[in-house]
Amino acid sequence: MTIPANALELRSKIADSTLTLSLEPVSLEEPGGDQVIVAMEAAPINPSDLGLLLGPADVSTMKSSGSADRPVLTFAIPEQALPTVAARQGESMPVGNEGAGKVIAAGPDAQHLMGRTVALFGGSTYATHRVARAKDVLPLPEGASARDGAAAFVNPLTALSMVETMRMEGHKALIHTAAASNLGQMLARICRDDNVPLIGVVRSDEQAAILRDLDVKYIADSSKDDFRKTLADACALVDATLAFDAVGGSLSGELVAAMETALTRDEPYNRYGSPRHKQVYVYGMLDRSPVQVPRSVGMSWSVSGYLLPHFLAKAGPEVNKAMRERVAAELTTTFASHFTSEVSLTEALDPDNLRAYAKMATGEKYLIVPQG
Amino acid sequence: MTIPANALELRSKIADSTLTLSLEPVSLEEPGGDQVIVAMEAAPINPSDLGLLLGPADVSTMKSSGSADRPVLTFAIPEQALPTVAARQGESMPVGNEGAGKVIAAGPDAQHLMGRTVALFGGSTYATHRVARAKDVLPLPEGASARDGAAAFVNPLTALSMVETMRMEGHKALIHTAAASNLGQMLARICRDDNVPLIGVVRSDEQAAILRDLDVKYIADSSKDDFRKTLADACALVDATLAFDAVGGSLSGELVAAMETALTRDEPYNRYGSPRHKQVYVYGMLDRSPVQVPRSVGMSWSVSGYLLPHFLAKAGPEVNKAMRERVAAELTTTFASHFTSEVSLTEALDPDNLRAYAKMATGEKYLIVPQG
Repeated sequence: MTIPANALELRSKIADSTLTLSLEPVSLEEPGGDQVIVAMEAAPINPSDLGLLLGPADVSTMKSSGSADRPVLTFAIPEQALPTVAARQGESMPVGNEGAGKVIAAGPDAQHLMGRTVALFGGSTYATHRVARAKDVLPLPEGASARDGAAAFVNPLTALSMVETMRMEGHKALIHTAAASNLGQMLARICRDDNVPLIGVVRSDEQAAILRDLDVKYIADSSKDDFRKTLADACALVDATLAFDAVGGSLSGELVAAMETALTRDEPYNRYGSPRHKQVYVYGMLDRSPVQVPRSVGMSWSVSGYLLPHFLAKAGPEVNKAMRERVAAELTTTFASHFTSEVSLTEALDPDNLRAYAKMATGEKYLIVPQG
Repeated sequence: MTIPANALELRSKIADSTLTLSLEPVSLEEPGGDQVIVAMEAAPINPSDLGLLLGPADVSTMKSSGSADRPVLTFAIPEQALPTVAARQGESMPVGNEGAGKVIAAGPDAQHLMGRTVALFGGSTYATHRVARAKDVLPLPEGASARDGAAAFVNPLTALSMVETMRMEGHKALIHTAAASNLGQMLARICRDDNVPLIGVVRSDEQAAILRDLDVKYIADSSKDDFRKTLADACALVDATLAFDAVGGSLSGELVAAMETALTRDEPYNRYGSPRHKQVYVYGMLDRSPVQVPRSVGMSWSVSGYLLPHFLAKAGPEVNKAMRERVAAELTTTFASHFTSEVSLTEALDPDNLRAYAKMATGEKYLIVPQG
């Protein structure tokens, strides 16, 4: 068993008003107990990675330095955004929520994983190597590549958790915004297979077409004049009282309002609105302005933050196990991710690529291939 | 048993863009089963009554007509507010959430209530008479007057429900806004007696003094420059993760932010914020602008509408019973209301009084005394 001497990982560090991205050496030790060393072969850039990678940095201020194999990028952080990153001042933080690769070294209690291709989750995956514990990796089924398994956690488990939440909280249908995203497409396939009524909120005809191809029956396009009516009509048809919102800002409140409109439409006036509880979970930040809820939505509503690890902790080990098994079984069907660009770890810090991540559009998806 | 022939009740009706307040005749029938007829002696004007009484009407457009004993007031409703009242167009609605009076007629199954002074809840209390079912009235203890019991439901039960919610949801302390209100003073007395840490948010030195007199230790004044720091410091001292907010607007989000600041202050940076769940219940609408939550509060938070009847339905009969018994036992101490003005039912529609309700300040409290 040879422990590589030249491992690198991508780091993000804020010092005063400067953000620095760089590749930093990591010293690896012989794995003990149930530890494994994974040679990372593939790690996606998810929207949820951008907060740590770029945060509030102004991409137009990017400066490039360092060497060809150890590039360094620096960015200015706008004055008014500094308080939001005060807590990470001076800390050099590893990046990358998930990825997959091959186990090249294993402790005495993890020998069964030697040579296996595994997926993992929980940070530091933009790296040549990543240390993990056996219980935290997902061995991929025979025939599945690291690329197939690179995005086996964040989007698949989040999509499944939405349907689980619907069941656990007694709702009958789901509204989802940014519904044509990679995650949204997974959710559409789950809802189709499980007969869950899904209302997809999109921003363009092109996105609507993606959802129609996945048999999504109810689609509301927020770029259209009749968006509110279309959404409320769909809510009435499926009795929607639950939404997952990747956007925030005023959209979160419009989702509550549409559900309330549908619930009160044919009812006698009640000054407190419908007594049916309406829940919006805000799990993304495509709009960074404050989440806004108008006062015309009655008194039975909640808007809440939503984070996959919190759901997993609440759901308990059986639900966790069932979800992971389903992901493994449907890795190349329901949960297949389509990547538009592959970049090496050094190319991941290419200025042009950074500019592309920052304005990541639906359908564009980067994969970092550190061993590529 | 004589059934009065000339009963009147206050009605609020919106037709097109005009709001009309008037006293309308009610025909009373011989009570059957467990019905009683209560001659109303006292009914408070609570903030929660103003929505139905005046709603979004422009008080500066008030016109007076009708006769001395059947006054009529009309108001214009601003164009932009019409959608918020679309559902009550054309409906003549009785007003008044609670009150107390004497049982003057009772059905065969409610004879034990004849002559008793009772408090009641649930609408139509701005009236000379109100029909109710025996199970829905609270017979007042010996020696308590209708004035003592007029406000025995809305504020006392809401204040008690806040402490119950804190216990049921596993929080350790309470934040309350508009904390020097009539309701706020009741809550302060409950928290003092039950040893519940309370943070009172107020808007002036005068309000802070009211709370200090009630032994409230943690007071944050939103009119001061150091409001955010004072509030976050208090949150840290009592480990606050729950707030009840009578205001809304941006204050709701500032409460979440203060709790989050306290929870993350001495912790290592976590880009998802503190995993501790922070809950704000918005139960009032002193600020009618949208409820706003900034994006710097992490991912573990909920902002929700809150309505007493929904809590009572969820809490179950035992909690309901215990709460009502405590209110009856402490009616003239913990739950004493102080009224600054008493008006008859016709005086309730006096233009000067209407103007006063509309800008009701903390400490001002009207009591309608229909038999007065």
